[in-house]
Amino acid sequence: MDEFEIIEHAFHQRMPFVHQFTRLSNGDDASIHAVPGGRELAVSTDISMAGKHWPENFPLNDAACRAVNAAVSDLAAMGATPAWMWLGVMATSPGDADRMGQGVGMALSTLSMELAGGDTISSPVNALSVTVAGLLPEGSGMRRDAARAGQDVWLCGNAGFSAYGLRQWRQGQHGGTYIPYFRDVRPLLTEGTRLRELGVTCCIDVSDGLCADAGHLADASGVALNLRLEDVPGFPTLFREVNEEEAIRLVLSGGEDYALLFTAATDMRGALHAFASRIGQCGEGSDVHVTWNGRHISIGGEGYKHFT
Amino acid sequence: MDEFEIIEHAFHQRMPFVHQFTRLSNGDDASIHAVPGGRELAVSTDISMAGKHWPENFPLNDAACRAVNAAVSDLAAMGATPAWMWLGVMATSPGDADRMGQGVGMALSTLSMELAGGDTISSPVNALSVTVAGLLPEGSGMRRDAARAGQDVWLCGNAGFSAYGLRQWRQGQHGGTYIPYFRDVRPLLTEGTRLRELGVTCCIDVSDGLCADAGHLADASGVALNLRLEDVPGFPTLFREVNEEEAIRLVLSGGEDYALLFTAATDMRGALHAFASRIGQCGEGSDVHVTWNGRHISIGGEGYKHFT
Repeated sequence: MDEFEIIEHAFHQRMPFVHQFTRLSNGDDASIHAVPGGRELAVSTDISMAGKHWPENFPLNDAACRAVNAAVSDLAAMGATPAWMWLGVMATSPGDADRMGQGVGMALSTLSMELAGGDTISSPVNALSVTVAGLLPEGSGMRRDAARAGQDVWLCGNAGFSAYGLRQWRQGQHGGTYIPYFRDVRPLLTEGTRLRELGVTCCIDVSDGLCADAGHLADASGVALNLRLEDVPGFPTLFREVNEEEAIRLVLSGGEDYALLFTAATDMRGALHAFASRIGQCGEGSDVHVTWNGRHISIGGEGYKHFT
Repeated sequence: MDEFEIIEHAFHQRMPFVHQFTRLSNGDDASIHAVPGGRELAVSTDISMAGKHWPENFPLNDAACRAVNAAVSDLAAMGATPAWMWLGVMATSPGDADRMGQGVGMALSTLSMELAGGDTISSPVNALSVTVAGLLPEGSGMRRDAARAGQDVWLCGNAGFSAYGLRQWRQGQHGGTYIPYFRDVRPLLTEGTRLRELGVTCCIDVSDGLCADAGHLADASGVALNLRLEDVPGFPTLFREVNEEEAIRLVLSGGEDYALLFTAATDMRGALHAFASRIGQCGEGSDVHVTWNGRHISIGGEGYKHFT
């Protein structure tokens, strides 16, 4: 199989969905899309690489499925509805390109999302560059710079399970009960849309780690984020699995949770309790401050960073 | 420098341009863009990797500048006006990330194009994943499936010079006079827009090689492309530099020319002669057929393909 046959067999045939606003789909120099009046486009890009974002011995189809869902999580955090994906595939062999195609196809089949274009190259390392675009009603996108002092801080999803699952895999417990939390990333699209419709304006997805992403939100908004560890979904459960220090580290710095961290005025509590947990408050000041039953917790790690 | 500082210093500071239709630029989970009524979005993605798309010893800033311009060439082929870029950076070191940032900044400064988002990771190999988006009047994008039998085939730009420049570099002639044709990719944006405005509907950019891309156009349109080698800009010149067989190979299969190959009705000749060369005709049938002063040329190579 040459490049063009691989692209056809590994990708196009598995991803036949075409979005209603597409004017020209993949196969040309560029794809063409309409964005009807009253709507805006939200776009995000993410690279996932073997040995960096998944262990080298992790099934490649699962890793590719994960890479797409992780990228789509950024659209969930904006409150956008996924529409199109452009995919860069770096594969060490045609077989690996095919395995990645399987995984990407698996992800797209549940997302109503179109493979609008791509590029596939042979590479010394398996990696995917995933660019995703979604649609939003004009001016309604949830941003990270809109938190205000006095608002509650909420988490939709949980923290620490994914990092614990990854650790189980790395320790050779390939049947570990937390591995699905790492493997099966589910972008919180329904929840993101619902939050946007309810009037939430400030949201971020938790990829670098709860504290790191809370820090991004605090910095962008110019507020302090005061979090209560005991209220973070996942913490009580992990505390029964590992020791105190480990549970704290996993929940605060584990990363790749793809939960939605958002803020909202206190009069929205009634509407939000059904699908999120209130884990703290925004205050005047800066940075992230964590307490555990009133006791201050010092934050060791800051989540995953490249080049450190 | 950690990941976030590298992103700030190597990329954001060098690329301050914000497009007038941007509603939220880089730094959030996604960027947000308006596409005003009457316009459509054209999007393309390309990966460029050290050792694959440029020689390992090629200056990394030049390689990165090239990668962006090569991606933008796909927008030129649609007749689109560049607006936004989302950039995936895979860098072996912070220094290499910085060199790539220099090159990308250099490219964007001449393009009025915004760095709308990105992802930067440490990697065993230097590579860039470049996704570009441009704007088009509704329904006007030039495609590769619109050629009709009886139309002329035109080339805007030349063929073979880039491949010859790359060969000079590989042979250690780092001052070779053709190297700039490989190094300094200039996407033919003005020309692409002009063609679209003149009513050209079928166009492709020459990246895989003149014959390979002519083949893509012929396949997509369901026509035969009959090309006259002696009329291809670049051939007579290269024929003075290298032997016959080499000149033919460079021009037909060299690749990375970023010329625009397009078709047009014969009554458009007067308008097109000013900035393109008429190199053949579309006929009934299929495939690409090349003659040299009436003699049939068999096409050995088919351009660069991965995984072969």
